[in-house]
Amino acid sequence: MTIKAYGAHAGNLPLEPIDIARRAPGAHDVKIDIAYCGVCHSDLHQVRAEWAGTRYPCVPGHEIVGRVSAVGAHVSGHQVGDLVGVGCIVDSCQHCDDCEDGLENYCDHMIGTYNAPTPDAPGHTLGGYSQQIVVHERYVLRVRHPEAQLAAVAPLLCAGITTYSPLRHWRVGPGHTVGVVGIGGLGHMGIKLAHAMGAHVVAFTTSESKREAARALGAHEVVVSRNADEMAAHAKRLDFILNTVAAPHDLDAFFTLLKRDGTMTLVGAPASPHPSPTVFNLIMKRRSLAGSMIGGIPETQEMLDFCAEHGIVADIEMIRADQINAAYERMLQGDVKYRFVIDCASLAG
Amino acid sequence: MTIKAYGAHAGNLPLEPIDIARRAPGAHDVKIDIAYCGVCHSDLHQVRAEWAGTRYPCVPGHEIVGRVSAVGAHVSGHQVGDLVGVGCIVDSCQHCDDCEDGLENYCDHMIGTYNAPTPDAPGHTLGGYSQQIVVHERYVLRVRHPEAQLAAVAPLLCAGITTYSPLRHWRVGPGHTVGVVGIGGLGHMGIKLAHAMGAHVVAFTTSESKREAARALGAHEVVVSRNADEMAAHAKRLDFILNTVAAPHDLDAFFTLLKRDGTMTLVGAPASPHPSPTVFNLIMKRRSLAGSMIGGIPETQEMLDFCAEHGIVADIEMIRADQINAAYERMLQGDVKYRFVIDCASLAG
Repeated sequence: MTIKAYGAHAGNLPLEPIDIARRAPGAHDVKIDIAYCGVCHSDLHQVRAEWAGTRYPCVPGHEIVGRVSAVGAHVSGHQVGDLVGVGCIVDSCQHCDDCEDGLENYCDHMIGTYNAPTPDAPGHTLGGYSQQIVVHERYVLRVRHPEAQLAAVAPLLCAGITTYSPLRHWRVGPGHTVGVVGIGGLGHMGIKLAHAMGAHVVAFTTSESKREAARALGAHEVVVSRNADEMAAHAKRLDFILNTVAAPHDLDAFFTLLKRDGTMTLVGAPASPHPSPTVFNLIMKRRSLAGSMIGGIPETQEMLDFCAEHGIVADIEMIRADQINAAYERMLQGDVKYRFVIDCASLAG
Repeated sequence: MTIKAYGAHAGNLPLEPIDIARRAPGAHDVKIDIAYCGVCHSDLHQVRAEWAGTRYPCVPGHEIVGRVSAVGAHVSGHQVGDLVGVGCIVDSCQHCDDCEDGLENYCDHMIGTYNAPTPDAPGHTLGGYSQQIVVHERYVLRVRHPEAQLAAVAPLLCAGITTYSPLRHWRVGPGHTVGVVGIGGLGHMGIKLAHAMGAHVVAFTTSESKREAARALGAHEVVVSRNADEMAAHAKRLDFILNTVAAPHDLDAFFTLLKRDGTMTLVGAPASPHPSPTVFNLIMKRRSLAGSMIGGIPETQEMLDFCAEHGIVADIEMIRADQINAAYERMLQGDVKYRFVIDCASLAG
């Protein structure tokens, strides 16, 4: 079957309407009519060939929500009509230690929702800027939010799980003081989630103008990181830092805010390296610098359920598919609070 | 009382015999006749003013073993005649969270065995290249090794605890594959300790000539890190890496050897930064880069007892005090297997 999508034929070309094919659902597949798809900064990097290895045509999008329209014969967990989501992962080896631990995101053979090899035409996966998608049931998540919130649920599938997973892994909760660095698509979710987990949340931004917005998201304190005095007042106060800033920046300024045994976890990979951190800051208080990448399927379901229970969704701005190129430009300016979401009904044209 | 010591009057002068004073033992003090003192690379950095803030005269030495020759009225844990050790720490605030957790090494007011402020003359602490030392009982360790091994016990007080503490903190034991990077004063202890803890030990050296020596120390496998094929064969195999190399080097080459959730802990602080590590290597497998500095007093005692039980000592080369300047030159060339120890009886001259 041929469906409508939005994608690019080369890294230097804008996104435009294209027709793509989806496979007929197999025995374990779920066919989803896509209602909304969030716009992640990774989409822009990949489609513009800023990361290596982009395959064209490229249809980005890995923050997908919609309704099940067909299921394969052996699918037991999903039914036609269910509200569901698909995130960054549509396949993995299913038998390595990572997959058996429910951490398919770390599987060496993880298949991304777009730009990953697949037997389906055109030979690589095509993402959620499209009308439909067919996905193996293992990688389809149940959405328990009210349908009215569905568009704002979409960004949970990447921005939500990417921040939820490290907060859980490093056991953030009541009694902890947690820093969230950067207040964008990821950071705004990190603040909401850490707050809901019961932590005392300190948000860090370079921009005085985001101070009130960060409070509104749930930050108990907001620090403008360019202000040395404000930073110094938080020295050795934080148990954990979730650093969502992908642009190269001075990590040492944040290490000094961690208590003994504190960890700063990076969830963004900069295009060029951060300035090399001072080993002294790690050694002196047994601190750690870590990285974390999205999350596994079971914890993505846990995150969606946690968000449904706590009434958490992303703050979004809805766009039509034909606004995507303009939205990318605004995203580059940081001009979005805090995530664009494509209304995929607009693809029908 | 005035005693003989070896120290320097300026960073550009050699070490020479000097007379120093020690305080009379207070109610909680232990007076120790020093038998041997290990020679740590830190000694050289500090006495030559390669690190900031060296106070002169500088008497280095923080790998001290000897026999108790007097105790204060309130000392209960040590008796005259006991074999004891003193490491890098001779005082701390005794009431912060770090001190209460037995991690005096992370106390903001930790007083190092040399070059730290003290009310005693000459206003800063003087280390173990001397005939005697007076130390608060809290910082005096019991040595349970046979007296014949005493000289080889000395390096356990710094090289031993600096490697033992991270191996324990990151729970190294049976079923773990552990990398030890660098086979010098610290690394040779790391290999022995990780082996005794039941781990599968992979030693990494830049030098083909150290291959057999590393095996003799207890490494189950030895990798010459300049050999890309050998390195690649260990990709994603290690649970933990203890990196003892203080010289700036490529950390990424080692990150790729860690499994998911693996940690590489640095115990050496380079004078200039390591090349900035690639965040991608951290993110892709939720790996961590950490630091660790010596260890607390209770775990130093635990380490000494563990070593006594397992028959572990350092491999040493004994020198007279008047050989210290030549020993420093040899240490700079890596020409010592694996630790110089000063016979402090030679101070009597």
